Amino acid sequence: MAALRSYVNGDWHVPADDGVPLRDAVTGAEIARISTAGIDMAGVLDYGRSTGGPALAELTFHQRAALLKALASHLREHREELYGLAHRAGATLGDAKFDIDGGIGVLFSYSSKGRRELPNSTVYVDGPVEPLSKGGTFVAQHVCTPLQGVAVQINAFNFPVWGPLEKFAPAFLAGVPSVIKPASQSAHLTHRLVELMVESGLLPAGSLQLICGSTGDLLDHLTDQDQVAFTGSAATGRKLRSHPVVNAQSVRFNVEADSLNCSILGPDAEPGTPEFDLFVKQLVTEMTVKAGQKCTAIRRALVPAAQIDAVVAAAKERLNKVVVGDPADPDVRMGALAGLEQREEVLRSLKSLLEAGELVYGDPDHFEVTGADAVAGAFLPPLLVRCTDPDRPEPHEVEAFGPVSTVLPYETTEQAIALARRGAGSLAGSVVTADPEFARQVVLGAASRHGRLLVLNRDNAAESTGHGSPMPQLVHGGPGRAGGGEEMGGIRGVLHHMQRTAVQADPGVLTAVTGQWVAGAERRSSEVHPFRKHLGELRVGHSVVTAPRVVTLDDVEHFAEFTGDTFYAHTDEDAAAANPFFEGRVAHGYLVVSFAAGLFVDPAPGPVLANYGLENLRFLTPTYPGDEITVTITAKQIIPRVDAEHGEVRWDVDVTNQDGASVAKYDVLTLVAKGGEEQA
Amino acid sequence: MAALRSYVNGDWHVPADDGVPLRDAVTGAEIARISTAGIDMAGVLDYGRSTGGPALAELTFHQRAALLKALASHLREHREELYGLAHRAGATLGDAKFDIDGGIGVLFSYSSKGRRELPNSTVYVDGPVEPLSKGGTFVAQHVCTPLQGVAVQINAFNFPVWGPLEKFAPAFLAGVPSVIKPASQSAHLTHRLVELMVESGLLPAGSLQLICGSTGDLLDHLTDQDQVAFTGSAATGRKLRSHPVVNAQSVRFNVEADSLNCSILGPDAEPGTPEFDLFVKQLVTEMTVKAGQKCTAIRRALVPAAQIDAVVAAAKERLNKVVVGDPADPDVRMGALAGLEQREEVLRSLKSLLEAGELVYGDPDHFEVTGADAVAGAFLPPLLVRCTDPDRPEPHEVEAFGPVSTVLPYETTEQAIALARRGAGSLAGSVVTADPEFARQVVLGAASRHGRLLVLNRDNAAESTGHGSPMPQLVHGGPGRAGGGEEMGGIRGVLHHMQRTAVQADPGVLTAVTGQWVAGAERRSSEVHPFRKHLGELRVGHSVVTAPRVVTLDDVEHFAEFTGDTFYAHTDEDAAAANPFFEGRVAHGYLVVSFAAGLFVDPAPGPVLANYGLENLRFLTPTYPGDEITVTITAKQIIPRVDAEHGEVRWDVDVTNQDGASVAKYDVLTLVAKGGEEQA
Repeated sequence: MAALRSYVNGDWHVPADDGVPLRDAVTGAEIARISTAGIDMAGVLDYGRSTGGPALAELTFHQRAALLKALASHLREHREELYGLAHRAGATLGDAKFDIDGGIGVLFSYSSKGRRELPNSTVYVDGPVEPLSKGGTFVAQHVCTPLQGVAVQINAFNFPVWGPLEKFAPAFLAGVPSVIKPASQSAHLTHRLVELMVESGLLPAGSLQLICGSTGDLLDHLTDQDQVAFTGSAATGRKLRSHPVVNAQSVRFNVEADSLNCSILGPDAEPGTPEFDLFVKQLVTEMTVKAGQKCTAIRRALVPAAQIDAVVAAAKERLNKVVVGDPADPDVRMGALAGLEQREEVLRSLKSLLEAGELVYGDPDHFEVTGADAVAGAFLPPLLVRCTDPDRPEPHEVEAFGPVSTVLPYETTEQAIALARRGAGSLAGSVVTADPEFARQVVLGAASRHGRLLVLNRDNAAESTGHGSPMPQLVHGGPGRAGGGEEMGGIRGVLHHMQRTAVQADPGVLTAVTGQWVAGAERRSSEVHPFRKHLGELRVGHSVVTAPRVVTLDDVEHFAEFTGDTFYAHTDEDAAAANPFFEGRVAHGYLVVSFAAGLFVDPAPGPVLANYGLENLRFLTPTYPGDEITVTITAKQIIPRVDAEHGEVRWDVDVTNQDGASVAKYDVLTLVAKGGEEQA
Repeated sequence: MAALRSYVNGDWHVPADDGVPLRDAVTGAEIARISTAGIDMAGVLDYGRSTGGPALAELTFHQRAALLKALASHLREHREELYGLAHRAGATLGDAKFDIDGGIGVLFSYSSKGRRELPNSTVYVDGPVEPLSKGGTFVAQHVCTPLQGVAVQINAFNFPVWGPLEKFAPAFLAGVPSVIKPASQSAHLTHRLVELMVESGLLPAGSLQLICGSTGDLLDHLTDQDQVAFTGSAATGRKLRSHPVVNAQSVRFNVEADSLNCSILGPDAEPGTPEFDLFVKQLVTEMTVKAGQKCTAIRRALVPAAQIDAVVAAAKERLNKVVVGDPADPDVRMGALAGLEQREEVLRSLKSLLEAGELVYGDPDHFEVTGADAVAGAFLPPLLVRCTDPDRPEPHEVEAFGPVSTVLPYETTEQAIALARRGAGSLAGSVVTADPEFARQVVLGAASRHGRLLVLNRDNAAESTGHGSPMPQLVHGGPGRAGGGEEMGGIRGVLHHMQRTAVQADPGVLTAVTGQWVAGAERRSSEVHPFRKHLGELRVGHSVVTAPRVVTLDDVEHFAEFTGDTFYAHTDEDAAAANPFFEGRVAHGYLVVSFAAGLFVDPAPGPVLANYGLENLRFLTPTYPGDEITVTITAKQIIPRVDAEHGEVRWDVDVTNQDGASVAKYDVLTLVAKGGEEQA
């Protein structure tokens, strides 16, 4: 039987020994053998650091984002092949899509977020400029730069595609090379995924490596610039996290582990309400998708004591329709577990749960399997446990990682929150209710022990992505038992791969470091108006100071009449003077910014195509009739678009009066044509 | 000799045994005895969780911020007393102010940041609303809520006031109770600090406890909701971090440990330049302030090889003026180390360093001590080491935690960066140069191994806070050897004490959870215009839809002429049509927002006092002459001020055209009078 190769040092590596078998979850037949024998793990890390990191550092965030998009499109073209491989891990077509389309979706999402929310450069500026001195010569700002190491990604067996991709995408976008280590049970699928990624030719050398099999002594060679993201059992997570090198080097170690997620039915959601049906439907979905092998699946269904009989009855009715069997059969709703060991593990956990409750649906010893051998394949039926005493420890502590859930009663909102918290750290929870106040209380009461909480009701059910779906825009991870980690969350997940550094300097040097103009830095005046410069000519700091303009009482009265904005502070001297912030009639803020535009706009057609927005406007000093305003406008940030003939320019605008006081400060956002040479 | 009491369970606890002596650093005399014998550590944690957490949860961020300010003022009144106690730990008046005034400054800073950057509520909303569906019924947003546990703060001996306060302030603002554990060598000062804090009567019950002495079995009782912030040696940090309960419960564990901070002299900064002098002056300051017992002190001075003789000579000249002796003597520039053990430890480290270089200033066996007994007190002279081979490991690995620095030569910018990185994770670094390009390269090259980097030059020297001063606005902590932690950093430090949770819901429920109106949630229309409601009457979601107004070609032409904004897209039909974004002449964006104000403003004097700003303005659809605009304005966020007769209201503004398309969206910021009943 062929051995799975690893992809290390830019080449495919054939194991140096026979390895261990990887078996088909449905038939038990050997699919491949797996081993990392012969791989120099220190060399893998070195190759990533010395080749992958520098190659990624050559690219801007936007360029990396564009590669992620191309990669996602490439994988989407090959997804049918991946679906086929997924069946051998026990997955139905629906399960396979959840994993594979979900993973590709993460790439698309990070590509999109990268282009919209990150600059087209290599440095991320985190937060505003912090003034540190009165004179303004000493300021600070935080920058994030990629860790100059490798992201070691140790994945779980249940998501052989989504798992590696949700870890790879933010690392790649950050500029950090990945070493992917799949779980053995489904490594054939990750192996093919990485083959496709490599075949795409899109990835810079060293930005991705694959280790099929044991990590060997890899952890011994980690440094402070490397990081580990682990998804799997809490026991393994604890073992890896306490590795002496991880500890001594303060290696960033993200753990995503066990989770006894709860779903809570609101007291309002009686039988007959849409929420009652949504609750039961979601419970059955979460029990059966991927045969319940989801770290986010519902393990604890918390229902009002008065409704427990109705919930169990309705769940049983739905569970009766679940066909278990060959995952390649389109009539089958639930396939096999990932392997016989997983089945044994689930049965052991079930035994613990049954010390606290009774099995009200499913019999692990007698159930029908369609189109497959019930003995050779790792099959189980859905198993529903009913627990009368919700204070028993087992339902809150034992994670049966299969199609198993426990229904528990609660009496009061406080008890529902307390029971939700008994999970001692969960990845996901849901509240199914049409009562916003119940939702508010439960969410805020349970939040500090949850990474994600879903409120489901008739208003959002049609569009909801459901209890069990982590989203790339949202954090995935939970405190305590769930490992204390945090992945994804949009750009947050990118920043997890970067070091945040406070930079203290004078405004000029800070501008040089961040590439964004900082107030107080020298401005570059030029003979031509900066609005006449194409993106390729424009530099941060290019500025113009306009001619002055006096704002007259006539102007204010006319503006009031013309726009209809007859607010008393502009029209009634006495009333204005009675206002705590004004000494008399003041010009409209909108008049000031309109006149400012009149002063700084360059009228003829040119590179500046449009003003698409405005940010951070603050009116700092009232403008009284007779005041004379002047505008200084300075190019603050220049973002050429990788895929368009224009880019975005953010301009710092400072409107001052005859005393030099700032009347208004804001950022004007424009679209500017590239033309000429593009800025480096 | 009196034993230091601990403050636990709301009471002062006298140790149950004799404890161990705490000695005067200058005389060696016993100051007090220290022990935690008899304290029930599990009870301490329980008291914090059950009393302190709920008491803090009753307060909003602004109320907690106000208490921090009052506390800071109270401590400032008693600082002279604290200065006196600091001498006994070896600190000069300057050293004492650095610690004590610095700590009080952190409280003021967090108070100010809390009021300006946090809402006046108990939930922090992190990041924007994330759309998750096309129809808009399913959205998400992240909220941060306080961990429902205790922040255990294990402090180092060198900052007995600043250390506890920089950990306490963000925890308190987050709503998390603190347990302060001072290092024994200077616990008498922290003890008095906590007495003052308790005596102030400002702190809610259970929000602060003090443990003088060993933590005993405290760590055994931690849960996932507790956290530990440790400052001290890397060895102790490793030991505590690998504690089995810390690991099993995924307890947040922040370590701030060893750090071989570097300061780099730029190649431009030759003798005679201001930067050369600044470099040498700063080096000597960092060696001698607190007798070099600062985790941020300069341990490695990296200088161009050609300048190493000049740097050493200039440093010696300055070091000659440093008077060592009784810290209470105003002529003394450098006091004692914290104790005789520290002195022994520094001498051991010095021995290691001297394997890589030679001692060019100071003799630990022969030096003058003014006004104190050189044998009984923990004195050392400043000790400067010169190392010829910068690749030797010792200068980059051995932290002599006293008045010791090593000067090393470098040849190229690349080598300077590589040497800076040899620290393998540092809290702070500095670059002294007038060359912005050198600064940029070094900062970006060394950033991923630094928590903070200072660029010092003639432009900012007068206002710079210096290499060794962590600032509450900026992150403090570093990767790798420095522990991998992050403290302070403004509001970031508050969020370290909270759990981030993604909340998925329909807009209405999300509004209920966050307290901020989310687009798509139901609006509350009312008979009176919402601008006529005082802050106490106004509710999130209160809204008004205005009458429509047609924007005519005359309006556009008149506005162009009136404001002077004659940009071609508003004035020239053909040129406008040639613009890629427009079909012909368009109305000015400023005209749209001005007319919008004319539609939504309520003219007569009322609760709305002023429009102080505008945010997130985006022009989404061009407005062509003849289009009819309508405005919907909705109260989005209401922030009553604790200390003023008004508050801030953020309004969501949506300007739509006759087709229902959004023309512009933005937030208008207003000041609104309280009046009536204040909103809960």
